[in-house]
Amino acid sequence: MKIVEVRELTVRLSGRIANAVVDFSRHDISLVAVISDVVRNGKPVIGLAFNSIGRFAQSGIIQDRLIPRIASADPDAYGDIDGNLSPAALRKVMMRDEKPGGHGDRASAIAAIELAAWDLRGKLEDAPAYSIIAKHFGRTPASLVSVYAAGGYYYPSDGAGRLQDELKSYQDMGFTKFKIKVGGASAKDDIARLETAIQQAGSGRNISVDANGRFDLEGAIALGAMLTPYDLRWYEEPGDPLDYDLNRRVIEAYQSPVATGENLFSVLDVQNLLRHGGMRPGIDVFQMDAGLSYGLTDYAEMISLMEAHDFDRTRAYPHGGHLLNLHIVAALNLGGCEAYPAVFQPFGGYLPELEINQGMIDLPDHPGFGLEAKPELQPHIDKLIS
Amino acid sequence: MKIVEVRELTVRLSGRIANAVVDFSRHDISLVAVISDVVRNGKPVIGLAFNSIGRFAQSGIIQDRLIPRIASADPDAYGDIDGNLSPAALRKVMMRDEKPGGHGDRASAIAAIELAAWDLRGKLEDAPAYSIIAKHFGRTPASLVSVYAAGGYYYPSDGAGRLQDELKSYQDMGFTKFKIKVGGASAKDDIARLETAIQQAGSGRNISVDANGRFDLEGAIALGAMLTPYDLRWYEEPGDPLDYDLNRRVIEAYQSPVATGENLFSVLDVQNLLRHGGMRPGIDVFQMDAGLSYGLTDYAEMISLMEAHDFDRTRAYPHGGHLLNLHIVAALNLGGCEAYPAVFQPFGGYLPELEINQGMIDLPDHPGFGLEAKPELQPHIDKLIS
Repeated sequence: MKIVEVRELTVRLSGRIANAVVDFSRHDISLVAVISDVVRNGKPVIGLAFNSIGRFAQSGIIQDRLIPRIASADPDAYGDIDGNLSPAALRKVMMRDEKPGGHGDRASAIAAIELAAWDLRGKLEDAPAYSIIAKHFGRTPASLVSVYAAGGYYYPSDGAGRLQDELKSYQDMGFTKFKIKVGGASAKDDIARLETAIQQAGSGRNISVDANGRFDLEGAIALGAMLTPYDLRWYEEPGDPLDYDLNRRVIEAYQSPVATGENLFSVLDVQNLLRHGGMRPGIDVFQMDAGLSYGLTDYAEMISLMEAHDFDRTRAYPHGGHLLNLHIVAALNLGGCEAYPAVFQPFGGYLPELEINQGMIDLPDHPGFGLEAKPELQPHIDKLIS
Repeated sequence: MKIVEVRELTVRLSGRIANAVVDFSRHDISLVAVISDVVRNGKPVIGLAFNSIGRFAQSGIIQDRLIPRIASADPDAYGDIDGNLSPAALRKVMMRDEKPGGHGDRASAIAAIELAAWDLRGKLEDAPAYSIIAKHFGRTPASLVSVYAAGGYYYPSDGAGRLQDELKSYQDMGFTKFKIKVGGASAKDDIARLETAIQQAGSGRNISVDANGRFDLEGAIALGAMLTPYDLRWYEEPGDPLDYDLNRRVIEAYQSPVATGENLFSVLDVQNLLRHGGMRPGIDVFQMDAGLSYGLTDYAEMISLMEAHDFDRTRAYPHGGHLLNLHIVAALNLGGCEAYPAVFQPFGGYLPELEINQGMIDLPDHPGFGLEAKPELQPHIDKLIS
C-alpha cells in the first residue's frame, strides 16, 4: 500500500470559552487526510484524523517537514511485514532527522497523521477503528465506554444559573459525571461554582475540577485544602504539568485523587511523571492524549509504562473528548473518556446516533473512526478531500 | 516604540554532515526581522536574529500564531516602563493563549523573535548586544570569551586523516579545545577517532565527546567506562535529554564531567534536570541554548535557577556556536561558547574580523549582534529586509 498524498486543513474551533489560562476561540486544529493508492467504488480509500483539541493546527510542521518525508519514503518504510500500512513505521518515517527532546507542536503534528493511518487501516479492513486497534494490541474491546461531560468553563457573562443549566443539560443527555474549571475566578467564586455543580450532580464524587496547571505549589495546596471536604472525583492539573515535584507534594498534602498528564506529549515525559510525580496506583488518574503525543503508537507505550509501574490501565482517562479517543478507550480497555457536548465544535463530542445512558456511551460501527458521520465535521471533510 | 512588521525567512543549512541521530543537511533555520517604527538615516531600525542551530525553521508557528499576536497587541504590551521594547514583555505577548507544557518547536519560534528584540534594542542604543544584555542583567561583560571548536562529525567518506586534518585546521585558527561526535560508529571506530583527536589536541582534557542522546542506560554507561581512561573535558548527552534518572546514573558510574541541556527548552525542564539529573556543582556542564528555548528572558532564568541550586554560571556553555550566543556568554559571564568553524553555514561561526588566540575570542563592536557583518548571512538578510 502506498500513500499517494497527505493533505491538511486548518479548522478553527467555534465557541467563546476560556479556561484559567487560554481563550479557546483562538485555537485551531489540523484535520488531515492520508490518501492511499487503494481504490474502492472508484474512489481512493482515505484515512482521516485530527490532532486533538486544545492546542493548535500544525500546518507548518506538516507541510514543511512531515509531508516531504512521507512523499520521499519507500512505501516499504511505512508498511508492516504483510505490506499493510503500519502506523508505528509511519511515525518513524515522520521522525526522520528529528532530534530527541522538544516534544511540543511536533508531537501533535505527527499524531494527526499517525491517527489517520489507523482510520485508513480500519477502512481498508472495513472495521471500526476500536476493533482494529484492539486486535493490534491484543485486547478485547469494550462494548460501552464510561464518559463524563467536561465543561464548566468561564464564560464572559457567567453566573450560578448558567452553570446549573449547563450541567442539567448534560444530565438530560445521559451524563452522570462532570468536570468544571477552577482557578480562573476568585477562590470564593470558584467554591460557589463548585457547590452549585455538586448540588446539581448529587455528590462530589460526580464532580472533578480542572485547574489547567495554573497554580504554584502554595496555591495548589491551598486550593486542595479547600477542595478536600467535597470528596471530589479528582483534582486535575493543579500546577505546571512538567513540575513533577509539585505534583508529588500536592498529592502528599491533598491525599484525595489527583489527575494529570494531558500536557505530557512523550513517553519520556510520562516516565518522569511516574518516577518523580508521586502518582499512586489505584488512586490517581492519567490523562495523556494520543492526538497530542505522536499518536496511538506512543500512547500505547505510555499505557504499558504505567502498567510496568503497577498502575492499572483503568486509571487512564485521555484528555480530548472526541471520537478518536472513544475508539482508543474502548480498544485499550481504559477507564473512560471525557466529552465536550457544548464546545470545541466541530471536533468535540461524539455522534448523534450514539446513545448515552447512565454515563455510558455506545460505540459507532462505521469503518475507521467514523468522522464522516459527524455532521459538524462533514463540510470540513468535504473541503479537505474534494 | 511600535513593531511595524515581523518577517521570517527559512534558510537551509549548507554542508553534508551527520551526528549519531540526524542528517543536518535537511535542517533549516528561521531568520527573522523585527521592524520598528523608529527611522534613522531614512531607514527603519530593524532587529535581526534566528532560532539557533540544529533543529528547524518555524515559519508555520511564526506566521500562524506569533505574528498575528504581535500585530494585534497594543505597543504598551511589549514596552517597558520607559516605553522601550521589552523582550520579556514581547515574549508574553507571543505566548498569549498558549498552554503550559509542550516546549518544542514553539520555544524556538518565540526565541528567534525574542532575540531579534535584543538586537533591536542594541541598535536603538547604538551598542553591541553584549553590552545591552549585561546592563539589563546587572553584569560586567567579559572582554574575551573562551571558545572551543565543535565538529568531528561523521562524513560519508571518513577516515582518521580527515579528522586529524579537521582538528589541525581548527588549531591553525587559534582553537585549543575541541568536541567530536561519538555513537555514530562502532565503539572500536569511535575510540580510534577519539585517540586520533587526543593525539592532535595534546590531551584528553582538550577533547569533549558528544553522543547526541543516542544511548540507553547500559550503552551510555558502557561507553562511559571506555572513555574514563582518557580523562576527557566532558561526555555530552549520553542518553535521552529528558531521561533525568539515566543522567544521574551515568554520572554515578562515569564520575568524570558530563554535559547536557541543549535539548531542554524550558525553565521547567531545567528545573527537573537540577532536581533529578544528578548534576554536580563544579563538575558538570549545562548547555541550554537561548535560541531554542524562548530566548534570553528564559535563558537568564535558567542561569538563575542553576545558581539557586549552587551551580556556578561558569559551568554554562550554551549549545549553538554562533554570534548570538557569543554575546550572551560575554554578557552573562558564562563559561564559554562552542564554534562550528566548518559547518552550519550561513549561521555557524563568528565574524572574520574576530581573532581567536589560545582559544579566546574577541567580541564584535557592531550595534546589536552584528549579524549584518557576517558575509555568509548578508545575502539572506538582504533578501529578508529588502
